Amino acid sequence: MQPFLKSALCAAALHASTAGAAPQEITPAGSQPATTGSAEYFTGQVQVEPVWPANGEINASGGRVTFSPGARSAWHTHPRGQRLLVTAGVGLTQEWGRPVQEIRAGDVVWCPPGVKHWHGASAHSAMTHLAVTGTTAQGQNVQWLEKVTDAQYQGK
Amino acid sequence: MQPFLKSALCAAALHASTAGAAPQEITPAGSQPATTGSAEYFTGQVQVEPVWPANGEINASGGRVTFSPGARSAWHTHPRGQRLLVTAGVGLTQEWGRPVQEIRAGDVVWCPPGVKHWHGASAHSAMTHLAVTGTTAQGQNVQWLEKVTDAQYQGK
Repeated sequence: MQPFLKSALCAAALHASTAGAAPQEITPAGSQPATTGSAEYFTGQVQVEPVWPANGEINASGGRVTFSPGARSAWHTHPRGQRLLVTAGVGLTQEWGRPVQEIRAGDVVWCPPGVKHWHGASAHSAMTHLAVTGTTAQGQNVQWLEKVTDAQYQGK
Repeated sequence: MQPFLKSALCAAALHASTAGAAPQEITPAGSQPATTGSAEYFTGQVQVEPVWPANGEINASGGRVTFSPGARSAWHTHPRGQRLLVTAGVGLTQEWGRPVQEIRAGDVVWCPPGVKHWHGASAHSAMTHLAVTGTTAQGQNVQWLEKVTDAQYQGK
């Protein structure tokens, strides 16, 4: 092949892939296995599914978390905050020093950096939320604290 | 009040509000009105609901977009990329120079920065996705380009 023709073909190939940018990626439903929430950080039955990782462009991961009735996270804080989008059921959340609040499908929670909180299902209904969790440049996104007692969960 | 006692009370008040951090906020379902997607940037009937804004901690907004059958975005790029989580129905997406691909509930799409793409419903099914869109420090998150023709939509 003549050198000038080879160069022209290379240029055409680069153009076809949007100037050499990485291609769009589709991750099929069900291809990222769920794991059981660790008993160290959760009370009750909790399933955690990765949805997307934080990367160099968007500094927050996405994860789908399903809490069985009565199940909840431990108390914890997030160094860059967290958005929760409730996608099914009825849940509870509480910020340290404030009352327990009910959250329902379609509600969105913003937990600012450093705010101590927990979230989970209500006593008689499961709850699923998408958790969009800010991640530091060093890869930190949560600091786990003590478990939520039954009395705290019941708002006593 | 004696100065030392005043100081002790101030410290206690700061402690109760998680060291003075902003409180957790709950945005109730249905409180953020949907708007109709502009005919300048969309073809067909499209409803756009804000879910959360980008902020100084998490550099991506969340928005729920519902496309009626046959509806789609115009071609566009994102300066910091975009995650799409399909939450209902069957849709289509295409990267410039590549084939149209089908996307279904539970699929997740990563569109890297600068990649020219479109997304929308399939011809006979509506599609809803959560769009998590990276936002620059200057507040930019999309560059709109030309509309998707019927022939492009049909993969011809």
